Amino acid sequence: MIQKKEIKYLASLKQKKFRLINQEIIIEGSKLILDAIKNNQEIIKIIYCKKDEAFSKIRSWAKEHNIPLNLCSHKDAEKISDTKNSQQIFALLKFKLPKKIDEIDLTLNNNIIVMDGISDPGNLGTILRTCSWFGYNNIMLSNECVEFNSPKTIRAAMGAHFYMKNIYKDSIQNIIKFLKQKKYEIIVADLNGTNLNKFKLKTKKWALILGNESKGISNDSINGANQIITIEGANKIESLNVAEAGSIIMYYLFKK
Amino acid sequence: MIQKKEIKYLASLKQKKFRLINQEIIIEGSKLILDAIKNNQEIIKIIYCKKDEAFSKIRSWAKEHNIPLNLCSHKDAEKISDTKNSQQIFALLKFKLPKKIDEIDLTLNNNIIVMDGISDPGNLGTILRTCSWFGYNNIMLSNECVEFNSPKTIRAAMGAHFYMKNIYKDSIQNIIKFLKQKKYEIIVADLNGTNLNKFKLKTKKWALILGNESKGISNDSINGANQIITIEGANKIESLNVAEAGSIIMYYLFKK
Repeated sequence: MIQKKEIKYLASLKQKKFRLINQEIIIEGSKLILDAIKNNQEIIKIIYCKKDEAFSKIRSWAKEHNIPLNLCSHKDAEKISDTKNSQQIFALLKFKLPKKIDEIDLTLNNNIIVMDGISDPGNLGTILRTCSWFGYNNIMLSNECVEFNSPKTIRAAMGAHFYMKNIYKDSIQNIIKFLKQKKYEIIVADLNGTNLNKFKLKTKKWALILGNESKGISNDSINGANQIITIEGANKIESLNVAEAGSIIMYYLFKK
Repeated sequence: MIQKKEIKYLASLKQKKFRLINQEIIIEGSKLILDAIKNNQEIIKIIYCKKDEAFSKIRSWAKEHNIPLNLCSHKDAEKISDTKNSQQIFALLKFKLPKKIDEIDLTLNNNIIVMDGISDPGNLGTILRTCSWFGYNNIMLSNECVEFNSPKTIRAAMGAHFYMKNIYKDSIQNIIKFLKQKKYEIIVADLNGTNLNKFKLKTKKWALILGNESKGISNDSINGANQIITIEGANKIESLNVAEAGSIIMYYLFKK
């Protein structure tokens, strides 16, 4: 049985402060844990109080890799869980903080999805999930973005976190400067731009910038853009959700 | 100043039971209230404790239309609000329950978006917002769908509710039967179908069916489908969020 102080520590990871200090997070549910295993994430231990169908798979993996499996009580599971209906199986995971732009050590040549102030954790997670669907695994976050590893973002991303290759977090100015230096075609999604339908991609090396939910795209991004695109609509409502706009544009770029 | 029993009533509308009995809901925030006004929604009263920039607009409208404006305390606003950070201005709104299929009194000839068991209120709201963006205002919900008028759905829809023209809720069997009778081309989004890229629309009279977040599309919908479509991806992650898939397909259909 797991110790009290251990439960206290795991529950503390619901707070951003402790996640950042310890660079550890809790993921919840067998499906997400199996995804983490499949994608070679650094799992420190498994904590459970209910054995569901997937449990035996997780147990054999843990035994094979010498990862502790700790039984906890239902009450403890509630303390650890971030949701109302806990799935009662958790993994404690190491994560690395997003890097600064000047730490880029690779000759980045792939497409990049840039989040310019995405503030809703659900939106960020959904966008990451869509990025994974289309195979985009280089992400840059402006400093104004919501925390990359928050429980809500991880839940909405449904395992996309484990697929991401390069995650950077820096000022939008530094991000734009980097993209310009590296000769990326900078595409910005905004309400006033060329209709996506008429949009022509000029190179295969592009970065797509998605803006804040209420303020939209920043001036730095607008000024840095090579092309500004809009998703044409029926003009019945003020705006599309940023995750929806992102999905439509990513699909468009993916097909090219 | 508003009466105690009134506050109690308004707070009761956070519960589904009372929303359905009274066919009234609370909407929160000036932006949503102005959208409701613009779209001629049946507003019963305005309740506020903070005057923001938009307040004078709402006040003049209320005076002109003889709609009561009730001041409440901050404490009362917290009781009424469904969110952690209340916007401290609310409208009480009448709504009609979705109709049954056999109550269709119009020669429906427009495109229809069908929700086959959408269970997350945020997803339902987001899909409605996308529907409005593309001008699709006929919605059919299977009985398994989450409540159309829940606060979370209304929040995510950002005013799309006020734009919807026809809302039906019935068994998926009755919905499919209706679509077949009326000779709709039934398009189903699923993981095993024709790539959207290769998909050809046969008529302009189509209905798009979107399925449940975890179980996917129902057998009734699969069996009733004229075409099943898939959004091709990079095969890195199990699935796209249903709202994202819906957005991509709606954009595609909108351009046709």
